[in-house]
Amino acid sequence: MTHSAPFPTRWNDNDQYGHVNNAVYYEAMDTTINTWLIGAGLVPVGGAEIAVCRSSSCDYLAPIAFPDAMRVGLRAARIGTTSITWELTIQREDTGLLLATGRFVHVLVDAATRRPVPVPPWLRQAVEAELTG
Amino acid sequence: MTHSAPFPTRWNDNDQYGHVNNAVYYEAMDTTINTWLIGAGLVPVGGAEIAVCRSSSCDYLAPIAFPDAMRVGLRAARIGTTSITWELTIQREDTGLLLATGRFVHVLVDAATRRPVPVPPWLRQAVEAELTG
Amino acid sequence: MTHSAPFPTRWNDNDQYGHVNNAVYYEAMDTTINTWLIGAGLVPVGGAEIAVCRSSSCDYLAPIAFPDAMRVGLRAARIGTTSITWELTIQREDTGLLLATGRFVHVLVDAATRRPVPVPPWLRQAVEAELTG
Amino acid sequence: MTHSAPFPTRWNDNDQYGHVNNAVYYEAMDTTINTWLIGAGLVPVGGAEIAVCRSSSCDYLAPIAFPDAMRVGLRAARIGTTSITWELTIQREDTGLLLATGRFVHVLVDAATRRPVPVPPWLRQAVEAELTG
Repeated sequence: MTHSAPFPTRWNDNDQYGHVNNAVYYEAMDTTINTWLIGAGLVPVGGAEIAVCRSSSCDYLAPIAFPDAMRVGLRAARIGTTSITWELTIQREDTGLLLATGRFVHVLVDAATRRPVPVPPWLRQAVEAELTG
Repeated sequence: MTHSAPFPTRWNDNDQYGHVNNAVYYEAMDTTINTWLIGAGLVPVGGAEIAVCRSSSCDYLAPIAFPDAMRVGLRAARIGTTSITWELTIQREDTGLLLATGRFVHVLVDAATRRPVPVPPWLRQAVEAELTG
Repeated sequence: MTHSAPFPTRWNDNDQYGHVNNAVYYEAMDTTINTWLIGAGLVPVGGAEIAVCRSSSCDYLAPIAFPDAMRVGLRAARIGTTSITWELTIQREDTGLLLATGRFVHVLVDAATRRPVPVPPWLRQAVEAELTG
Repeated sequence: MTHSAPFPTRWNDNDQYGHVNNAVYYEAMDTTINTWLIGAGLVPVGGAEIAVCRSSSCDYLAPIAFPDAMRVGLRAARIGTTSITWELTIQREDTGLLLATGRFVHVLVDAATRRPVPVPPWLRQAVEAELTG
C-alpha cells in the first residue's frame, strides 16, 4: 500500500530555466513524508523522537513548471532498526506523467540528544500497515 | 469581488521558531497573484508584457505552522496607468483566522526591454470585472 | 552608525524572469538582522526572548541576478518598549547600486509564551551603540 | 584538481529542528556548480546550451545551523558524451568538518529544444583542466 498527496508549485519554484528547480523536488518529498509522519503520530516539537534525513536521491525524468501541480507517492522500502527507507514518485497532478523517482533514508533520533533510537513500535506498525507490501 | 486560493505549507517553511517564516507569506501572495494573472491571460515566458514587483508589504497578526494550510484572498485596490496595486489577506484554511494582510504593487513592463508599459486593456478589464468593487 | 554585510545570491534565487525573486530580498534582510542579533547576544534556541516579525516592507528599485551578490545595510530607526524598527538598504556588492530599501518591525517576545516583553537592556544598549545616530 | 567556494547560510535555511534543512544542501551544490559553469563560459540565458539536472544525491554526515557557513568542494568524476557527473563535498567553513557528500549529473541540452547535445569542447576542456585528475 502507498500514500499519495498533491504538492502544488509556487511562482518562485520556477528557476531561470522556466521549470521547477531540482531542489524543490526534495521539498516535495520531505513535505509528503513529514505530513504522513505527523498524521501517524510523530510530534516534531516536544515529542520523544524525530526523524532526520540521512541520505536522499532523485532521478529527474521530465520537467514541470508553475502553475502545474505535482502529486507525490510514498511507500516504505525498508524498516531498519533505527531507520526507514522511503521510495517516492513524483507525477504531474493532471496527467499522471512520471516526473521523478526519489529515495529518502530517515534515521529516528532522540529529540534531545539527536542520537539514533529504535523505530518506535507505533511507527513501525503504522508504516507496515499503510506504506508497505 | 475578490479571488481566493488555498496555499498549503511545506515542511521547510517552518523556521527554527517552529512557525512559517515571514518571507513565505510573500511567496504565498506572489503565487496567488501570478496564478490569477496567468489564468487571466498573462504569459510569463514569451508574452508581450510581464508584471514585476515594485513594492510589497505585510502585517503579521498570528503565526501558522506546517502542516496547517493558508488561504490567500486577493483584490485590486487600484489600477494605474502602468501599475496594479493588490491587497491581500492570508487566513488559516481551516478556521479562517486572519494571519496577515499584505500589499503588492506590480508594474507592467515590456518583456524584452523591461520598461513600463500601459496595463493592457484585456488585463484592465479582467481586473475590474473580477477583483474590484 | 550602521552595520552592513554581504549576501551572496543562489542559483535558485533567480525566478523565471531571470532575476532574484522579490521574496528573497526579505530573506536577505531577515538574515542580516538575525546575524546581528545573534552577534549581539540573542540566543534563538534556549534563550529568554526571541524577536518575531510584526511587519515588513520593501521598495524595489533595480533588479539583480545570480551570480551577482547583494550587500545589506542595517540601522535601527526606532527602539520602542517591546519592538525595534529596522531600516535596511540592499545594494549590489560590486558597484554599490541601490537595489531596494526595506523595513522590518520586530517584536521581542518571551521564547516560551510568545507574549511581548520589553526590549532587554543589553539589546537596547547594543542597538543604540551600533545601529543608531 | 578541484574548485571550492563558501556558501553562507540564511536565517530561513534552518528548519524547525534548528539545523539547515536537507534540501538546502542541494541549493548549495547546484549554486557551486552553476557558479563554476558561468565562470567557465556557460551563458544561462541566451546561450546555445544549458546544463539541466538529470539526477542528484546526498549523504548527510553532520548537521550545521545558521549562522555557520558551509564550504562546497567540486570535482568532475566523469565527462560523458552529453553529461557531466559532479562529486561534491560540503564542509563547515570554520572547522572543515565534513557535513555531507553529494553527486549531481548534469545533461547538456540545447537551450531552445531542451534535447541533449554533446558537451561542447570548450566546456570539456575547462572541466578537464580544472576539475579532474
